[in-house]
Amino acid sequence: MSATTNHQFKLAARPEGNVKASDWNRTEEPVRAPADGEVVIQVLYLSLDPAMRGWMNDKPSYIPPVGIGEVMRALAVGKVTASKNPKFAVGDHVTGLLGVQEYAYSNGQGLTKVDPKLAPLPVYLGTLGMPGMTGYFGLLEVGQPKAGDTVVVSGAAGAVGSVVGQIAKIKGARVVGIAGGADKCRYLVEELGFDAAIDYKTENVAEALKTHCPNGVNVYFDNVGGDILDAVLTRLARGARVVICGAISQYNTTTPVKGPANYLALLVQRATMTGIVVSDYYDRAGEAAMVMAGWIQSGKLKTREDVVEGLDAFPKAFDMLFSGANNGKLVLKVA
Amino acid sequence: MSATTNHQFKLAARPEGNVKASDWNRTEEPVRAPADGEVVIQVLYLSLDPAMRGWMNDKPSYIPPVGIGEVMRALAVGKVTASKNPKFAVGDHVTGLLGVQEYAYSNGQGLTKVDPKLAPLPVYLGTLGMPGMTGYFGLLEVGQPKAGDTVVVSGAAGAVGSVVGQIAKIKGARVVGIAGGADKCRYLVEELGFDAAIDYKTENVAEALKTHCPNGVNVYFDNVGGDILDAVLTRLARGARVVICGAISQYNTTTPVKGPANYLALLVQRATMTGIVVSDYYDRAGEAAMVMAGWIQSGKLKTREDVVEGLDAFPKAFDMLFSGANNGKLVLKVA
Repeated sequence: MSATTNHQFKLAARPEGNVKASDWNRTEEPVRAPADGEVVIQVLYLSLDPAMRGWMNDKPSYIPPVGIGEVMRALAVGKVTASKNPKFAVGDHVTGLLGVQEYAYSNGQGLTKVDPKLAPLPVYLGTLGMPGMTGYFGLLEVGQPKAGDTVVVSGAAGAVGSVVGQIAKIKGARVVGIAGGADKCRYLVEELGFDAAIDYKTENVAEALKTHCPNGVNVYFDNVGGDILDAVLTRLARGARVVICGAISQYNTTTPVKGPANYLALLVQRATMTGIVVSDYYDRAGEAAMVMAGWIQSGKLKTREDVVEGLDAFPKAFDMLFSGANNGKLVLKVA
Repeated sequence: MSATTNHQFKLAARPEGNVKASDWNRTEEPVRAPADGEVVIQVLYLSLDPAMRGWMNDKPSYIPPVGIGEVMRALAVGKVTASKNPKFAVGDHVTGLLGVQEYAYSNGQGLTKVDPKLAPLPVYLGTLGMPGMTGYFGLLEVGQPKAGDTVVVSGAAGAVGSVVGQIAKIKGARVVGIAGGADKCRYLVEELGFDAAIDYKTENVAEALKTHCPNGVNVYFDNVGGDILDAVLTRLARGARVVICGAISQYNTTTPVKGPANYLALLVQRATMTGIVVSDYYDRAGEAAMVMAGWIQSGKLKTREDVVEGLDAFPKAFDMLFSGANNGKLVLKVA
């Protein structure tokens, strides 16, 4: 073990706007043996999520920021390579906040065993991981779609959005996805069974919503914020529920965040806008995983992962999240 | 009757920004006899409300806009002077959308009898009228304050805000009002029993909120929008409820509405922002009036009306709503 090297990406500087290569510091150190109660985990797959951008800012949020000089925080799936913790054995597969590195140490807290025979490991970072849980609880607990409702989701081809749209279909809603590019839109309609898709890069979103949501929008699940949020607000139906899950269009701006100028639609339509943070539902993650695993097996819920190879590809792969270059849940294969 | 003249203010043009004198057309016509089923009502007191500004815009809202050439819509209290409707007798006092004029005709729909012995007539336009109902249902149904919660209300010295703050106190909350000017702030604390007041004209609202809401804001009742809404969003407590009742700071802008740039606080704090329109609760108005009349009689709920004299003062009095010149519920005494 002492001969093994752990390569890591640490946060070198707080980014302003887009993350630059110089905001990362690639370091290496020897892998040490576990202390009492600890396990050593070889990271196999890293999850790349838009929320990570927020964790890099030094301002109050639902989770403390990553410190300068600390290994960048990231969810991952790995395999236990050494254990002094009776709950975990060498060879166990686990998921948790292992960080952007090849080896991680853990006292077992926040570590969950996963079964690679039930689903491919990257799925535990997507549909059966944080993004899937976010979509499941955000849609069902906050959005509360009813059969016949019109549900609109932005970032629809992403890890969260694709789960939201498919679950809304399972619940009997009419589903319209907003995504960037013809390929993603085709994927939504032809492979995931969405009723319609709007390509925000080439279409006028407000006009397209008029066409595809003639009775208004009952549930809007927002991953992007900005102009798209504003466009959907103009189409809300009476009593609509707007789920605020993220605002990927605003994460890299150096100008102030663009607030939704059409928020008074909430008044006109007696609508509600509510934020969701997935960690509030972690105690029910098992329930959601069981339900979604069933849907995956019966073919009702499709998953797609975009796997990029190698830890050193991390900075470039991370950028893909914000340019919309990824197709499906973005995962970095580390080992 | 035929000798009596009805003076009226009609909408002459759709205002851009602040309402100008030329947006009104003062007209007169003889008062006619009631048709079958109709009553003729002499308008005694007119209610001036910020919502009226929204009714002048030709865009979709919760109520159709006032048409050009139509008598300006307004709530009022009046006295029946002639009746061919068996439900109303000459001498009855009634409230309803009688319009900015001296005499109104009605088939009885939307007309409610009021008892001038139970409360002075202007109170039926304030605490026992639309503003009071808005505050009562907006706070209790949407804001849902619990004892010990911190409740913040903007436009706090206004007709809605003063009711919201006092009911929140009755429910055991800590109450902080935001208003413009030392007189209004003194009124809130010394006469209405608010725990604190913030003068947005001279204080930094965000800093003052830190001082007065050390545990954050559990309920925010927003009448003003704009920078004050943004400031309060930065101080939300976990699970906060933001009630969107109006946005008086934005009603006269000719630039686009300023959306709340800090809306992602909803996500960080798992908070909810919900619009309220009082007409959704009209079927429960009797319940609210009974409860609030009880509070008024027991001295727990104080009312204040700012009565301006004469129909011809209407354009100038209407402007007072937006300059914040009125103290308490603004009412025009017509007869």
